[in-house]
Amino acid sequence: AGRVNSPDTLCINTIRTLVMDAVQNANSGHPGAAMSMAPIAYTLWQNTLNYDPTAPLWPNRDRFVLSIGHASMLLYALIHVAGIRQVTNGKVTDEPALSVEDLRQFRQFGSKTPGHPEYGHTTGVETTTGPLGAGCGNSVGMAIAEKWLAARYNMPGFTLFDHHVYTLCGDGDMMEGVSSEAASLAAHLELGNLTWIYDSNRISIEGSTDVAFTENVAERFAAYGWQVLELKDANDTAAFAELLAQSRAQTSKPTLIIAHSVIAWGAPHKAGKASAHGEPLGAEEVRETKKFLNWPEDSSFAVPDAVLPHMRAGLGARGLAARTAWEKLFADYRTAHPEKAGELDAIFSGTLPEGWDADIPLYPADAKGTASRASSGEVLNAVAGRLPWLLGGSADLAPSTKTLLKGQESFQPAKWGGSYAGRNFHFGVREHAMGAIVNGMALYGLRPYGAGFLIFSDYMKAPIRLSALMGLPVTYIFTHDSIGVGEDGPTHQPIEQLVQLRATPGLTTLRPADANEVAEAWRYLITNRSGPAALALSRQNLPTLDRTRYAPASGLAKGAYVLASSEQTPRVILIATGSELSLAVEAYETLSAQGVPARVVSMPSWELFEAQPQSYRESVLPSAVTGRVVVEAGSPIGWDRYAGPTGTIIAMNDFGASGPASQLLKHFGFTVDAVVDAARKQAG
Amino acid sequence: AGRVNSPDTLCINTIRTLVMDAVQNANSGHPGAAMSMAPIAYTLWQNTLNYDPTAPLWPNRDRFVLSIGHASMLLYALIHVAGIRQVTNGKVTDEPALSVEDLRQFRQFGSKTPGHPEYGHTTGVETTTGPLGAGCGNSVGMAIAEKWLAARYNMPGFTLFDHHVYTLCGDGDMMEGVSSEAASLAAHLELGNLTWIYDSNRISIEGSTDVAFTENVAERFAAYGWQVLELKDANDTAAFAELLAQSRAQTSKPTLIIAHSVIAWGAPHKAGKASAHGEPLGAEEVRETKKFLNWPEDSSFAVPDAVLPHMRAGLGARGLAARTAWEKLFADYRTAHPEKAGELDAIFSGTLPEGWDADIPLYPADAKGTASRASSGEVLNAVAGRLPWLLGGSADLAPSTKTLLKGQESFQPAKWGGSYAGRNFHFGVREHAMGAIVNGMALYGLRPYGAGFLIFSDYMKAPIRLSALMGLPVTYIFTHDSIGVGEDGPTHQPIEQLVQLRATPGLTTLRPADANEVAEAWRYLITNRSGPAALALSRQNLPTLDRTRYAPASGLAKGAYVLASSEQTPRVILIATGSELSLAVEAYETLSAQGVPARVVSMPSWELFEAQPQSYRESVLPSAVTGRVVVEAGSPIGWDRYAGPTGTIIAMNDFGASGPASQLLKHFGFTVDAVVDAARKQAG
Repeated sequence: AGRVNSPDTLCINTIRTLVMDAVQNANSGHPGAAMSMAPIAYTLWQNTLNYDPTAPLWPNRDRFVLSIGHASMLLYALIHVAGIRQVTNGKVTDEPALSVEDLRQFRQFGSKTPGHPEYGHTTGVETTTGPLGAGCGNSVGMAIAEKWLAARYNMPGFTLFDHHVYTLCGDGDMMEGVSSEAASLAAHLELGNLTWIYDSNRISIEGSTDVAFTENVAERFAAYGWQVLELKDANDTAAFAELLAQSRAQTSKPTLIIAHSVIAWGAPHKAGKASAHGEPLGAEEVRETKKFLNWPEDSSFAVPDAVLPHMRAGLGARGLAARTAWEKLFADYRTAHPEKAGELDAIFSGTLPEGWDADIPLYPADAKGTASRASSGEVLNAVAGRLPWLLGGSADLAPSTKTLLKGQESFQPAKWGGSYAGRNFHFGVREHAMGAIVNGMALYGLRPYGAGFLIFSDYMKAPIRLSALMGLPVTYIFTHDSIGVGEDGPTHQPIEQLVQLRATPGLTTLRPADANEVAEAWRYLITNRSGPAALALSRQNLPTLDRTRYAPASGLAKGAYVLASSEQTPRVILIATGSELSLAVEAYETLSAQGVPARVVSMPSWELFEAQPQSYRESVLPSAVTGRVVVEAGSPIGWDRYAGPTGTIIAMNDFGASGPASQLLKHFGFTVDAVVDAARKQAG
Repeated sequence: AGRVNSPDTLCINTIRTLVMDAVQNANSGHPGAAMSMAPIAYTLWQNTLNYDPTAPLWPNRDRFVLSIGHASMLLYALIHVAGIRQVTNGKVTDEPALSVEDLRQFRQFGSKTPGHPEYGHTTGVETTTGPLGAGCGNSVGMAIAEKWLAARYNMPGFTLFDHHVYTLCGDGDMMEGVSSEAASLAAHLELGNLTWIYDSNRISIEGSTDVAFTENVAERFAAYGWQVLELKDANDTAAFAELLAQSRAQTSKPTLIIAHSVIAWGAPHKAGKASAHGEPLGAEEVRETKKFLNWPEDSSFAVPDAVLPHMRAGLGARGLAARTAWEKLFADYRTAHPEKAGELDAIFSGTLPEGWDADIPLYPADAKGTASRASSGEVLNAVAGRLPWLLGGSADLAPSTKTLLKGQESFQPAKWGGSYAGRNFHFGVREHAMGAIVNGMALYGLRPYGAGFLIFSDYMKAPIRLSALMGLPVTYIFTHDSIGVGEDGPTHQPIEQLVQLRATPGLTTLRPADANEVAEAWRYLITNRSGPAALALSRQNLPTLDRTRYAPASGLAKGAYVLASSEQTPRVILIATGSELSLAVEAYETLSAQGVPARVVSMPSWELFEAQPQSYRESVLPSAVTGRVVVEAGSPIGWDRYAGPTGTIIAMNDFGASGPASQLLKHFGFTVDAVVDAARKQAG
C-alpha cells in the first residue's frame, strides 16, 4: 500500500515520514501508532470528515478525537497537510495552524506541538488527550452534546446539527475502565453519531498485549450494544472507507471499527515491536523506512507540493461547501427562529442570557436551616430555568445529591422514556466516565455538571484534572462532604478530598457555609467560565445565617471575608468553611459575650482568596493578629498558611467512623465548646 | 421459598429479619439487597464455603467478599448465625465475633457493626468494601494470591492451598470501570478459583437500571473469557447450589453467576423498588414482611434456637473437619519441607526473613548519579532476592518504572508463557484494578507492589485510600514524579499528586533524594507493615550525595534530617525533597562559600517527620530560624507548615509544559541560582 505514489499514498507517506522525522528530531516521542494509523486517519479526513480547514470552529464540524494522545504527531501532521488555519483569540487567521517549522519544534518548550495534544493550545486539537481512555470518554460527551443540540435546535427545514464524532483509540484505551464505562453508556444512549476506530496493534509498553489483554473486544462491544466492524489491514483504505460508510448508516448504535495494524508499519526492523511505541526509530531505521516507502531517503520534513492541494481538493472542498451552506442555513434560521439562534450564539460565544440569575433566591435567616446540597439543588433549578444549556446529572445519586432539574426530561432515547432534548442525565455508577463525558459536553459550549458524593471524587480525579487543564466550565457538585455523612462510615467520609481538589491547578473549590453562600457560589461559577469549579456540600442541615447581623454572602466571591469582628482589634480570628462555619459563629458570639475581642472569617475558597490583592488579604487576616483557630472537618494539610505557626487547627487527622453524625462531630472535636476553648487559649 | 420453615428457610428468614430489624433500629442503612441475597449467601456459606467459624484466620479458608458493602447487615447476620468466633490480637477467643447485641448496635458509633464492612474491625470481614467495584477488584487479587501460594508451596502430597474466592456484587459493581478491568485480567489469568455472584436486581438509587445500564452483562463476561451461569430466581437455592458446583468444576475460567433477584423480596410494598435500597423499610412494612415470611410479627432480632446449631452442623462441621485435616497436613509439611513451612509462617505472621536487607547496596558518591526510579529498581531487586513474597508489577509501564524482578517468571498461566509461581505481574493499562488487586494480595500476607507514573496515581486514588484504611503493607512505586518528565508535557507531569498522597491518612509518602535515600526508603517501608507506602521517584538522574560530607541517609526514617549545617546558628534553612534536594545542597555550598550561615534539610516524608517528638522536630527546624526556603517541584500547598509565614516556597503554582526537562526546570525556577537568591533574601 505504501509503494505506489498515488496522490493518496503520497499524502499518507508524507504523514508517516513527518511523524518519523519529528520524533527523531525531538529525540523523544511515540512514532509507532502514528505511523501505522496514517492511512486510517488520512482516509477518514480526506474522504469522510465534514470539516472545513478554513473554519476550525464551525459548530457543525465532525469531531476527530485522538484518544491515543501519545500519537500526537499524527494529528499535528494532519493539521499541517489539511491546511487548517490558525485561530487566534477566537478568530480565524490566514496563517497555517501548524507550519513545517512548528512540526520541527515538536516537543520543544513553548512550541505549538507539545508531547500530547493540548486543547486551546493548538488549533485543530478538539480535546486534550494523553491519559488513556480520556479521549474515549470525551467523545461520548461530544456525541451527547451533538444529539442534544440537534434535538433542541434543529427545526423543520433546518438541520443545523447532524455531525459525527470519530475517535481514534488503542489497546491502552480499551484496557482502561473509563472507556468501558463510557462505551456501555454510549450504547444505552443509542449514540449512532459516534464511531471509535480501535488501532489493534497488540503492542503495548510491556510488549505483546498477550501478557495482559486477551479478551474478545469485538464481542465485548457487541454486548454493550455497539455495531462492531473489523478491518483486517489498516493499510486497506478502500475497505476502511466502506466501514466508515457502514458506520454512518447505523444511526441507532455507536460503531467500533477494529483496525488490525502493525505498529510502525514500514519500518524494516522495528515494525511490530514494542520498541517502536515510545522512542525514536533511530536515524538509520528512518532512512530505511523511507526507502521502503519509496521516499527520498535524505529528505527531512518533506511535504511534496501536491499534498496540500490534494487535501484542499478533498477534505477542503467538501468541508468548505458544507460549511458555507450551513452558514447560509443558519442565517435563514436566525430570521425564522431568532430566539433559538440567540441561544446558539450565546452557547458558541460563551455568554449568558440576560437575567440568568434573576431567580436565585435570597434566604432568610433560619436557625434550623437546610443542607447545602438541598439549597444547591434549589439554586441549580433557579438558574437552570433561565439558562437552558445548563444540564447534567449524577453517577446514580441524583436523589441524594439533589441535582435533578424539576420538570425536565431525562436525556434518553425514546426507547427508554426520555428525549435527546432532556437535561437530566443518568450516568449510572460510572464516576470516571461521567467526568470525561461532562468535559466533552463542555467542549461544545454547554454548561454541564456532574454530581456525586465528595468521597467519590477519587474515582474521577483524572477527568477533573483534565477539565482544569483545558479550562472548561464544568461544575462538579460534590455532596456528603465530611464526617457529617454519619453512619455510612469511613469509606464514605471524605478527609483528604478537599485539599486534593484545592491543590489541583485551575480548579476552583467552593465550600459554602449556608444557603446564601450556596447561592453566591453558583453566581460565581456560572459567571466565571475560564475553568471548572467544584462545590463541596453538606448532607446535614446548616443554619442560614442572619445577614443583617453578619456580612453579606457576596463576600464569597473573594474567597474569604469577615463575617463579624469586634470593635477593638481582635485577639483571635476564627476561620471556618462550610458546615463548620456555624460553630465558629457561635463561638464568636460566646467569646464576644465573654468580652474576648474576636473575629470570624468565612473562607469558602482558598483559590479565590489567594487571587485577591495582598491589601484585601491583609484586611481579612491581619498578620499582626496571630491568634488563630481554623475549623474544618477535613485534612489539616494546607491550613497552616492561614492558621500561622502558632494557630490551632481543628481538623480530621485520621479517617472518620460509622455512627450518627452528631456523635461523630462531637467525638472528633467539632463543637462550639472546643472552638471557644481553642480561641481562648489563642487569645492568651 | 420463604414460607416453609425448613431449617434452611428458618436460617434464611433469620438473616432476612435481622437485616430488617437492624436497619430499622438504626433508622439508617440498606435493607434491600441484604434481604434478597439472604438465600444466596446462606446457601453459599452453609453448603459450599470451606470455612471454619472457630478458625477465622485459617489460611486455606474460602474467602467471601461482599463487594456490595452497603449490604453489610447481610454479612453481619451471617457472621452471627454462622457462629464465627472473635479474633483479638491475632488469637481466636471463645466469644462470638458478633452477638445479637452487636447487631442491635448496627451503625452506632464504636460498634463492631459499622455502616460498611471494615477489615480489621470485625472478625469475618475479609476486606473493607463500600466504594463500588472495590471488592470485585480485591477478589481478583485474592484469587491471584491463592494461585501463587499454591504454585509455590503446594508439594506432592501436600495440597496446602486449594481454596476458592467468592464475591457477591451488584449492578453498581458491574457499572464501575474497575470491575471491568479486573474481570478482563481475571479471565486472562484463567482464575478458575474465582466466582462472582452478581445480584441482578435491576434497581439502583436513581430507580430502574434501565435509565443507564442496559448492556448484556452475560455476553460481556463471556467476551472476557468467563464462564457465565444464570440463576433465574435468587430464591431457588437448589438451582444455585448446582451452579456453585459448576463454578467449582470449571478450573480454568472464573465464573459469573447472574442471580436474578427482587430487591427486598418479601416486603409487600417495597419489594422491587428503589426506596428499598438505602433506607429502612418502616416499622409497618417490617411487620408485614415478617408476616409474609411466616415470622412472628412482633419479634425483634429473633434468632430461633435451631439456627446456630443448624449452621454448626453444616458450615461448621465441614469447615472444622477441613481445617483440622489441614492443620495435620501442615504439621507433616513442616517436617517434610521445613524451609517452605518457615516461609509460610512468616507470611501468615507478617515477619521478615533474617538478613532480608543484606543485599541492599550502599551507593558511593556520584555527581552524575542515577534516576531514583533506577536505584529503586536495584534496591527492589536486592530485597526481592531475599524476600520471596515481595512481588508485583506495573500497569504496562515496567520498562519505565524499573520494577521488573530480574530472573523471575511472569505470573501467567502456562498458556501465556509464565507460571503461577511467577513474581512479575502484568496488570495491563488498568491502574484502578491494579490498586484493588494489590490490596487483595496484601490481605493474604504477601508484600505486593504496584507501579506506574505518579500522574496516574489519580486513576487509582480510590484503592490507595482503601490500602490506607485497611492498614495494608502495599507499596506503590510512582515514577516520573515531576515536570522532570519533560517532553510528555502537562498531562503527564504531576503537580498536586504529592500533596494528595500526603494528605491521605495512613499512607506514608516517601520522596527520596538520591540512591541512598531510596535504599533507606525501601528499608523503612519493608519493615513497617502497618500501612501502605508510596514512593515518588524521578525519571531524571539525581546525583548521589557524598555521605562522608553530608549526614547519612538513614535520617530518612525520621522523615526529615539535617544534611549539613553551618557551625554558627543558620540564618536560613533550605528544605527540599527528591530531585530538588541537589539544588538545595548546591545552594548551601554556595551560601557557605559566601559566608552565609545556612542549613540544608532533606525532607523525604512529612508523615514520618510529624511522627517524631517535638524535640527532634525543633532540632531539625528550630523555630527561631525563620529564614526558610522550600524547594519542591510540586504543589506548594502544605509547605507553609515548614516554610513558616515568611519563608519562600519554590514550587509549581500551575501546570507544567512540554519540553526538555532541563529547560522546564529552569523556566519554572528550579535552579541553584534561584535557591541562592531566595536564601540570601531570607537570610536578610
